[in-house]
Amino acid sequence: MTFSLTILGATGSIGRSTADVVIAQRDAFRVEAVVGGRDALALAQVARRLGARFAALADESGGEALKEALSGTGIGSGAGQSAVLEAVEREADTVVAAISGTAGLAPTHAALKPGRRIALANKESLVCAGAAFMADVRRLCIDLLPVDSEHNALDHALAAGMNRDVEKAVITASGGPFRTWTRERIAGASAKEASAHPIWSMGSKINIDSATLMNKGLELIEAHHLFDLEADRLDVLVHPEAIVHGLVQWSDGAVTAGLALPDMKVPIANALRNERRLRMDLPRLDLAAIGRLSFDRPDEERFPCLSLAKAALKAGGAMPTILNAANEIAVAAYVADRIGFYDISEMVEAVCSTFSGRQLAAPETVAEALNIDEEARRAARQAVSAHDRTARL
Amino acid sequence: MTFSLTILGATGSIGRSTADVVIAQRDAFRVEAVVGGRDALALAQVARRLGARFAALADESGGEALKEALSGTGIGSGAGQSAVLEAVEREADTVVAAISGTAGLAPTHAALKPGRRIALANKESLVCAGAAFMADVRRLCIDLLPVDSEHNALDHALAAGMNRDVEKAVITASGGPFRTWTRERIAGASAKEASAHPIWSMGSKINIDSATLMNKGLELIEAHHLFDLEADRLDVLVHPEAIVHGLVQWSDGAVTAGLALPDMKVPIANALRNERRLRMDLPRLDLAAIGRLSFDRPDEERFPCLSLAKAALKAGGAMPTILNAANEIAVAAYVADRIGFYDISEMVEAVCSTFSGRQLAAPETVAEALNIDEEARRAARQAVSAHDRTARL
Repeated sequence: MTFSLTILGATGSIGRSTADVVIAQRDAFRVEAVVGGRDALALAQVARRLGARFAALADESGGEALKEALSGTGIGSGAGQSAVLEAVEREADTVVAAISGTAGLAPTHAALKPGRRIALANKESLVCAGAAFMADVRRLCIDLLPVDSEHNALDHALAAGMNRDVEKAVITASGGPFRTWTRERIAGASAKEASAHPIWSMGSKINIDSATLMNKGLELIEAHHLFDLEADRLDVLVHPEAIVHGLVQWSDGAVTAGLALPDMKVPIANALRNERRLRMDLPRLDLAAIGRLSFDRPDEERFPCLSLAKAALKAGGAMPTILNAANEIAVAAYVADRIGFYDISEMVEAVCSTFSGRQLAAPETVAEALNIDEEARRAARQAVSAHDRTARL
Repeated sequence: MTFSLTILGATGSIGRSTADVVIAQRDAFRVEAVVGGRDALALAQVARRLGARFAALADESGGEALKEALSGTGIGSGAGQSAVLEAVEREADTVVAAISGTAGLAPTHAALKPGRRIALANKESLVCAGAAFMADVRRLCIDLLPVDSEHNALDHALAAGMNRDVEKAVITASGGPFRTWTRERIAGASAKEASAHPIWSMGSKINIDSATLMNKGLELIEAHHLFDLEADRLDVLVHPEAIVHGLVQWSDGAVTAGLALPDMKVPIANALRNERRLRMDLPRLDLAAIGRLSFDRPDEERFPCLSLAKAALKAGGAMPTILNAANEIAVAAYVADRIGFYDISEMVEAVCSTFSGRQLAAPETVAEALNIDEEARRAARQAVSAHDRTARL
């Protein structure tokens, strides 16, 4: 049986891995639409490779280039927000939601159609607007499958029991490039050093988030929404080999874990299963060959972003939205060398505490979430300006 | 809600751990009957401790001692096979089948009543008479839950998918006391050295089986019957820390694993769950405190019993029954210092090849299995006599 598929964020890292999975499973899928951001030629290429029916570029100015690159293929195309929405509206059994950042929030939300399956890789849908997003997921009977390796692992592990019997769900962190560094050394680290992720090759923002461990904090917030688990039933474990991605500890003492080689094609293929799992021709996990797995507690002294994310999750309301927005601004400033590594956590903390007195409720709609997000970004930009070391020169 | 429980093998190692779980969960269970082998006083003690309604001792000659030890308690008692059967017949929602050895086969089989839950710890029901036993389990809609930590772990892991998507189910072996010994050194090992299990304290027979890795081979045969997986979808991994007990590798590359501290109370409690898991006040698995898990391939050169068991599983028919019987006789001879360590595998192999020409079909009834078992034991006893080093003195 052939399933129809639409890929949002087809030219990004997850999108490209998704294309690899689909190519390897030619008979299982028919690609309805692909959506990209700015790179018209890359989008045209993936559309041709996958035999998609329609390609939409978010950047309106690239529309002509896309049209030209697809001429003679029979693949329809469009550019701008209306074209993206058209792609999302087209009938597809499964939508892979892999646009990264807050830009992915609106299209991912628009992709929620009754009975559809969503393979979710856009973190912001849950971190920035989790309550609103999940309310619609439930209302529309969406089959939501997480593509993140950590949440995909928890999805496997949670199958062994019921939510009420979960004592703790744990996601692992490779520990990032600074796992063994002292706080003093980390304090002076450049964005380039922070981007050198030991296991995964990802975008710059997410690499910095891995170095600060904010990434794990955001994943805890995602896990909270995906699996209906409160802050005190969620935790993080450092695991440098990145083989065990998530574990569930049950009330009777048993533990179930999700493992895989660190290859995004594994959770993507899992999220694209139909009546049965796909048979993927990928290297298999060979624990005897790996020999050893190691585990450690995260050090929230050296990685305060993790504490901040936990605190935001515990505080609830709009605090995760605010934390996420402040973090994006702070990371951009760090990448631009305007602030130092520990300024990221300081600024996120400062912005969160500015808002904490207002006790904002969790945004009830995606639009409301985006408003709070924008307000938090403004506050964060002001904090960056005050901190800016290039301005002080 | 209170569930009624009967414990077969109440004075053994699993039985005592079961009693600990039941005591810790006083409100969840009412104990209907307890069954023991020879130790009347130990059986009376556990019957009183659990407030059982009936106690049955297999050894008829201990009936008076049991009766006396229970006088004034209101707990009924009996001795001999009829009393054991009476205990098994009494109404109970769940029966813990923890009589060890071939002696447990008939009572465990008799305990299969429509709709009952069986928490299975008797290996022989599956190893010696697997096809016959499982046919009745299916016919009677028995809810069969494995108590062995390895199979309990697989039971957890398999919940994440469907049988047809399982590429490999793997159980782990601590590696036993000879894991790091050379073949030469192992060849001269005494039964006492072989009994020094690094992780679990068990009975003598099962300790020797752990030293030869026959234990893992028998567990593969059990897994075959429990989970309907063929020989080539089953494997063994050495894991000295005994934390990961079983893993399932899926066709899409994902792996799900069952973990727990090596404490039999965990899988027992799991097998005794009702609508929800029991909340056990046991130490929790702390991977950060453990720090490291290691894995290795089993060495079938030094541990040929594992190869023999795999071959018997692959050969099918009555071969697992024959292997198990021959192994019991050979292990007893080794414990009695009549044969050496590697004579165990040599004799098992010799007995299996004696029978292999006959291509005996898998026994269709428990009685038929016991006949083949007895025939194989006779052949094994002859082989022992021929090998006997005490006789040669």
